[in-house]
Amino acid sequence: MSDSEDPSVGPRVYRVPDGDDRERATCPECGFIAYENPRIVVGVVARADDERILLCRRAIPPRIGYWTLPAGYMELNETAEAGACREAYEEARANLKLTGLLAVYSLARIHQVQLIYRAVLTDPHVEAGPESQEVGLFHYSELPWDELAFPTVKWALQHDHQAHMEGHGQAFANPTTEED
Amino acid sequence: MSDSEDPSVGPRVYRVPDGDDRERATCPECGFIAYENPRIVVGVVARADDERILLCRRAIPPRIGYWTLPAGYMELNETAEAGACREAYEEARANLKLTGLLAVYSLARIHQVQLIYRAVLTDPHVEAGPESQEVGLFHYSELPWDELAFPTVKWALQHDHQAHMEGHGQAFANPTTEED
Ligand SMILES: [Zn+2]
Ligand SMILES: [Zn+2]
Repeated sequence: MSDSEDPSVGPRVYRVPDGDDRERATCPECGFIAYENPRIVVGVVARADDERILLCRRAIPPRIGYWTLPAGYMELNETAEAGACREAYEEARANLKLTGLLAVYSLARIHQVQLIYRAVLTDPHVEAGPESQEVGLFHYSELPWDELAFPTVKWALQHDHQAHMEGHGQAFANPTTEED
Repeated sequence: MSDSEDPSVGPRVYRVPDGDDRERATCPECGFIAYENPRIVVGVVARADDERILLCRRAIPPRIGYWTLPAGYMELNETAEAGACREAYEEARANLKLTGLLAVYSLARIHQVQLIYRAVLTDPHVEAGPESQEVGLFHYSELPWDELAFPTVKWALQHDHQAHMEGHGQAFANPTTEED
């Protein structure tokens, strides 16, 4: 349902499939069962050499004109880390090096899990991609708190600041010798 | 496609939808477009008071008879943390308290991202749920390394051991005052 552009086609009738324990969206025309699961958003708090933080002003709904972190849906056939780097390039033409996982936020009501990484820009040049009106680099004290697009952007900026000030351990990722 | 029990129905023809930049599975009968994204597996390395680690011997394919950590697909309308606790109860009747995120593993080829938490058992009683043949508690030195179900189980056990020995920071989660 949430994946379809058109609510009048595709899986839209909820019933419990044989052998399952909860209702799933089923297509009454073709019988296809959609096992809907939360979707992963990958994003990044990227800092320049002078510690300014990269934000993008949204050119697309929702929240057009508000500032956000580079982030978007993780695609098939990429790692979470590769997805975060891809989004940073698509939205801000940013080239960066990830330095660890900052946070995992569960947004149960909107069926999202956000994986937010920390990063440093490897090239100071950034510019707006097609989904951004403009990009900006902000010192923490100058962040546009009143014009942030989503609560999770605020959470991530505050957590990144806390991590930056206190030092910060991080979750493990795939062992590099045994990558998928 | 990967979500359907029956490959002859539902989204199975790949084409690039209008306004998109990559091929998506589309149903030729009803026109439904499946935006397939990686699925999230939530799991847990849980330790008892005596530091033994909880494993389950699988009663279902794949890898029947091999040992695994409590883990499974995250469902809609739950947080990652709630999903990890749910799986521990379903597979091992375990009650536990999460102590932080251990690792994020991207398994790009099989379209999974695994979120593995650390936990302590709050009740020493555990027993096999319907998807487990038996459950066991093992000291690290006694783990059944040759009978583990999946590489990620080995990764998580090794990372948990490393975290246990060295101390270990962890990723942030939703601020508790602003949970979704
Ligand atoms: Zn259909
Ligand atoms: Zn169809």
